[in-house]
Amino acid sequence: MPGNSFGSLFRITTFGESHGAAIGCIVDGCPAGLDFDLDFIQRELDRRRPGQSAIVTQRKESDTVQVLSGVFEGKTTGTPVAFLIPNEDQRSRDYDHLATAFRPSHADYTWQAKYGHRDYRGGGRSSARETAARVAAGALAKLLLKTQGIEIQAYVSQVGHLELKRNYSELDLSLTENNDIRCPDPAMAEKMIRFIKKVRKAGDTIGGVITGVVRGYPPGLGEPVFDKLHADLGKAMLSINAAKGFEYGSGFEGVKMLGSEHNDLFRVEGGGLKVEGLAPSTLHPPPSTVTNFSGGIQGGISNGMDIYFRVAFKPVATIMRDQESVNASGEPVTVKGKGRHDPCVVPRAVPIVEAMAALVLADHFLRHRVSNLETFQP
Amino acid sequence: MPGNSFGSLFRITTFGESHGAAIGCIVDGCPAGLDFDLDFIQRELDRRRPGQSAIVTQRKESDTVQVLSGVFEGKTTGTPVAFLIPNEDQRSRDYDHLATAFRPSHADYTWQAKYGHRDYRGGGRSSARETAARVAAGALAKLLLKTQGIEIQAYVSQVGHLELKRNYSELDLSLTENNDIRCPDPAMAEKMIRFIKKVRKAGDTIGGVITGVVRGYPPGLGEPVFDKLHADLGKAMLSINAAKGFEYGSGFEGVKMLGSEHNDLFRVEGGGLKVEGLAPSTLHPPPSTVTNFSGGIQGGISNGMDIYFRVAFKPVATIMRDQESVNASGEPVTVKGKGRHDPCVVPRAVPIVEAMAALVLADHFLRHRVSNLETFQP
Amino acid sequence: MPGNSFGSLFRITTFGESHGAAIGCIVDGCPAGLDFDLDFIQRELDRRRPGQSAIVTQRKESDTVQVLSGVFEGKTTGTPVAFLIPNEDQRSRDYDHLATAFRPSHADYTWQAKYGHRDYRGGGRSSARETAARVAAGALAKLLLKTQGIEIQAYVSQVGHLELKRNYSELDLSLTENNDIRCPDPAMAEKMIRFIKKVRKAGDTIGGVITGVVRGYPPGLGEPVFDKLHADLGKAMLSINAAKGFEYGSGFEGVKMLGSEHNDLFRVEGGGLKVEGLAPSTLHPPPSTVTNFSGGIQGGISNGMDIYFRVAFKPVATIMRDQESVNASGEPVTVKGKGRHDPCVVPRAVPIVEAMAALVLADHFLRHRVSNLETFQP
Amino acid sequence: MPGNSFGSLFRITTFGESHGAAIGCIVDGCPAGLDFDLDFIQRELDRRRPGQSAIVTQRKESDTVQVLSGVFEGKTTGTPVAFLIPNEDQRSRDYDHLATAFRPSHADYTWQAKYGHRDYRGGGRSSARETAARVAAGALAKLLLKTQGIEIQAYVSQVGHLELKRNYSELDLSLTENNDIRCPDPAMAEKMIRFIKKVRKAGDTIGGVITGVVRGYPPGLGEPVFDKLHADLGKAMLSINAAKGFEYGSGFEGVKMLGSEHNDLFRVEGGGLKVEGLAPSTLHPPPSTVTNFSGGIQGGISNGMDIYFRVAFKPVATIMRDQESVNASGEPVTVKGKGRHDPCVVPRAVPIVEAMAALVLADHFLRHRVSNLETFQP
Repeated sequence: MPGNSFGSLFRITTFGESHGAAIGCIVDGCPAGLDFDLDFIQRELDRRRPGQSAIVTQRKESDTVQVLSGVFEGKTTGTPVAFLIPNEDQRSRDYDHLATAFRPSHADYTWQAKYGHRDYRGGGRSSARETAARVAAGALAKLLLKTQGIEIQAYVSQVGHLELKRNYSELDLSLTENNDIRCPDPAMAEKMIRFIKKVRKAGDTIGGVITGVVRGYPPGLGEPVFDKLHADLGKAMLSINAAKGFEYGSGFEGVKMLGSEHNDLFRVEGGGLKVEGLAPSTLHPPPSTVTNFSGGIQGGISNGMDIYFRVAFKPVATIMRDQESVNASGEPVTVKGKGRHDPCVVPRAVPIVEAMAALVLADHFLRHRVSNLETFQP
Repeated sequence: MPGNSFGSLFRITTFGESHGAAIGCIVDGCPAGLDFDLDFIQRELDRRRPGQSAIVTQRKESDTVQVLSGVFEGKTTGTPVAFLIPNEDQRSRDYDHLATAFRPSHADYTWQAKYGHRDYRGGGRSSARETAARVAAGALAKLLLKTQGIEIQAYVSQVGHLELKRNYSELDLSLTENNDIRCPDPAMAEKMIRFIKKVRKAGDTIGGVITGVVRGYPPGLGEPVFDKLHADLGKAMLSINAAKGFEYGSGFEGVKMLGSEHNDLFRVEGGGLKVEGLAPSTLHPPPSTVTNFSGGIQGGISNGMDIYFRVAFKPVATIMRDQESVNASGEPVTVKGKGRHDPCVVPRAVPIVEAMAALVLADHFLRHRVSNLETFQP
Repeated sequence: MPGNSFGSLFRITTFGESHGAAIGCIVDGCPAGLDFDLDFIQRELDRRRPGQSAIVTQRKESDTVQVLSGVFEGKTTGTPVAFLIPNEDQRSRDYDHLATAFRPSHADYTWQAKYGHRDYRGGGRSSARETAARVAAGALAKLLLKTQGIEIQAYVSQVGHLELKRNYSELDLSLTENNDIRCPDPAMAEKMIRFIKKVRKAGDTIGGVITGVVRGYPPGLGEPVFDKLHADLGKAMLSINAAKGFEYGSGFEGVKMLGSEHNDLFRVEGGGLKVEGLAPSTLHPPPSTVTNFSGGIQGGISNGMDIYFRVAFKPVATIMRDQESVNASGEPVTVKGKGRHDPCVVPRAVPIVEAMAALVLADHFLRHRVSNLETFQP
Repeated sequence: MPGNSFGSLFRITTFGESHGAAIGCIVDGCPAGLDFDLDFIQRELDRRRPGQSAIVTQRKESDTVQVLSGVFEGKTTGTPVAFLIPNEDQRSRDYDHLATAFRPSHADYTWQAKYGHRDYRGGGRSSARETAARVAAGALAKLLLKTQGIEIQAYVSQVGHLELKRNYSELDLSLTENNDIRCPDPAMAEKMIRFIKKVRKAGDTIGGVITGVVRGYPPGLGEPVFDKLHADLGKAMLSINAAKGFEYGSGFEGVKMLGSEHNDLFRVEGGGLKVEGLAPSTLHPPPSTVTNFSGGIQGGISNGMDIYFRVAFKPVATIMRDQESVNASGEPVTVKGKGRHDPCVVPRAVPIVEAMAALVLADHFLRHRVSNLETFQP
């Protein structure tokens, strides 16, 4: 099965290469009757856009999105929503030297091995430019989730060795978009930005971590066994360019804990949780636990607490230094350090993480609607 | 879409509850003509079986697998292979107290919220017993991969704070199965076992990490964009009960590295790599890189180097202590610490990790066969 | 993608060969909370069972179904329902002569061409025995549809040249099960039975047509474009062994009509139909048309009128005569006329047609639940 | 699952409304390395284009296709091929009267019932304009099939009561495109055209039948059980606007035949067929049968003989007469006969039938590549 689609009921299929005519996607499965806010979608794209600050790539792309179908009189119609984003700045000649040479830790060699024939201009389809389509689709998913009171926020929690020690609940996430790095701690943001500038000046790149937080996701969503909510979130995040790891709740740190420390005890309050035979959406008040090492997900299904997770990103492979490599004939070549690139992916990856989370959460929101006969309308 | 299937071309669908009549699965998409080694499959199940050592649950299950279809005269026929594993030790009464009470950090509450009606006996389908079906299917996938010279090995690399510092290439993985904890370092294995026994004696549980290694996977496998090889591996691992995190190659540590340190330089040796227009399987010799921070995967596609990854598992939620909780009516209850369980999941999870990896790798092996017209037979 | 699954949200995967240990299936996606009526399911299987009358095959199979999972305390749990039907009468030696010879108009040659290795006993998986699993799953789908007041009935409308001229609305379908051929017109039933007996006596076989009727299917179900309700019904019917054609509504006869004759005019009665912004289930009274050449489906979506369709079945390929053929080495051979078989498939295919219709209708019933935001619960 | 995708390995997802900005599709799964012939694709679109002759709709659309991705230096790259066809002639005001009125036998009412909100301009997405995207994708599939020597041809075999009695093998199909109706019998073509003109003059419409023929499809393709080759062809054809029936091989006529008449005997010639353990592509010479009532498919798998089938199309619902109907409030209204439309769909549906057949055949060609381990490269 081709790998350019994601999701089962809220389903996105993307297309496009870095230096082709356009990139875009089709969203199939967005329910009819959703208020379509194009301005919001464009704003989400603007958050991912190149050239938005001094610490990101200076490629010139307005990333202006066009909507070709699926919307009528301001509302979705239930038919496929097609998004088109023309490529504007296609300095393809920059990449002629890559027609045969394989850049280290890029996808050049692996694509050549797979397909035998590839669009090498700017990495072709392996370029992170593809993620703009995801952001557009994710923005539509966010609009759907908002109708249910579900909010997603991501932020940069680590750049290189600079790690924000406080967890999400100790931070004011409304500050995230106030700085170029998208870290809600202003002092740490400042440090991170300075560090990235220094790394860039040295012609180098650096990795980072993004933390994602979901609030208001009702209990009972997610599928047991293979399509556990966190498994789908994990796949979504790992499908983003440069991602190397994913953890949710207690994550890798949790392995050091005892069960008696790690178990999240239920809390009875405000009349308690009453769930027998009821649809998730009728649970009042939402259940709660004293701690939340589970990260809002138990047995692959949401429990109504905040969902939180972390995604690791490696340093960008394009560096401004010459590197020894090989070409398709197996001969040694020198890959020159040139082309426009990000010194660190995380500031621009924040909206991508949110978009991918939104796609997963919207999909499972829809999937849940067929799970329980008692919740069907009479 | 229901969530009990995994894979696209090599596809498994599992069924069964912890205390129902049986568990099992259908494998659809195994090619015809594969030598079917039932003994091997049973041996893989034996590695996951309860009661195999002093540090795992003492539930009595022989986990004897039956093959109902898809095999004729010792070979697969291309039709669905159905595996059936009867449940033998169904002490359901042990679980009567759980009919309404929600155990902390179990899936009791979330299943109730989702379905309104659940088989609470032993956790029903949320029990890790379901993974026996995956191991049977994964063993079949391993048989397919072996025909291509692909080998998968997993081992325990951490239990609680006890972490094996050497990486897989510095260890003799053939020693893994020599001890009850499945750690290839005998001295560390001894420490881990002692620690688990101590934890169990205290009625408690502990988490751990499993490292997986794949050797011989040819370059060019995996799909770009959403179904990246590592994204599918990540989802596979995160779908295993108690999994909290996944990383591959440099993982979370890689975020601290500079691009110039992290990039894996190609090495020209033995005539070098020649790939233009060739099928992966004809690449001689396989390409190689000086370092392997990429973990054998670049841009979501294998590069021929070893693939390695780590999976974090939380401490088991069932502990031998009383815990305060609530029931489905929102009333406070005490959940007693009883029932049979594992003090630490990792020793039994090793074959599960391998099985899930095998399913992903077999699937992408098949998926690749339709990618490149030049590799089609004349 | 392997081809042993059907449906997207109500999804069935079958397994098993004619002379293997068992056949069966997994139903994934049946909502939780459905009353599980095993007696009903067994009765449906009895309608398909061999040996039920003088005009069907005399193979001895009780087709007793076992339920291995997915049901607890008389209700579905939302987890996979696994059905198992052991094979009892496996006279495999009857088929040794078919190990290499290809029976004319059977699937022997094509399976050999596809897989190179096949279970030839009784046709292996190409045997219509596989459809027993469909009937079990279809019976579960019927139980779901019944909760919504949806009923499916099929009957034999043609055997050879003997064609029932009256359409379904002119017949008393409650008489269908009163005779061995399952034709609601007793006089015609008698003729058909006599004809089949005569054909069988001559060692021959004959084709037939089954008509299916669905009542109570609410308007608005089915997906436009590729998964039109009638397109999915057509595929379902054509996937039944020996099916050669499908038509719905006016079908092939409709091509001779003028648009002005064929158009189904809407009828305003009892207050008329009010649909703006409403969920299908709230439409009171259901809409109606003066004629129903549309067959209850317009633009691939149900309109609330009766759905009806016809399925053509060829004569069974197994005949009691010697036939010249070839073997796998290309040498001429004589295929002897032996083995147990049906002289005409249609009486036993009636429950299969109903089962496949039920699977499609249940699937689209669930699929519709995510189409329209206005129908979502607040 | 949303219904705007078709195929599993060669997979198309379409978007667009009749009077929106554009229609188009993404083809995911076209193998890399295929020579991309844009002229051929455009010519296929020209065959479906409105305004091409006096007997089709006079809407002005050049249907000029743009390729946005997936092609580089004249070859496919294995990444999604996105086709875009801008809508040029959008006389939306023509349709204002349809904002609330439901046209008889159109999809107006059913879409309203399903979605509550719809783009009524020109039928929105229920318009046959959507099929232009299918023709573009189908043309790409044809290019793939041509590399394997597989050819598809469709023609009009019936208009109203005017039926071509000779079957495809008695006709010179190269004459099909010589006349406006696309009937390979020039005399019958003339009659059909005269008849359609007469019907149109009367403000009416008429149905028809298209016959499709596939030559050179190798034996062994198609999946048994649910995804039988003819079942997928049937679904494909029934998903085309106005289709009412599908039959292949002997079809509905075959039900009147005896098994001894209907069975296709194998013919041994030129050394005969040798298939044991061999890949389909190595079969020399291709197998053959004396008759071909099977229509080239046995047990859902191709047998190497010609595949042929017939598709019934109803008369177009738009007629140039006033019709009584109802509106969304249940009030009686008169629907005026206006708008541009086809008096008979079949001439323009010929390339659509071919395109849908090509999509099915390309998909099963790819699917077969993972069926049989013995055919895998060493």
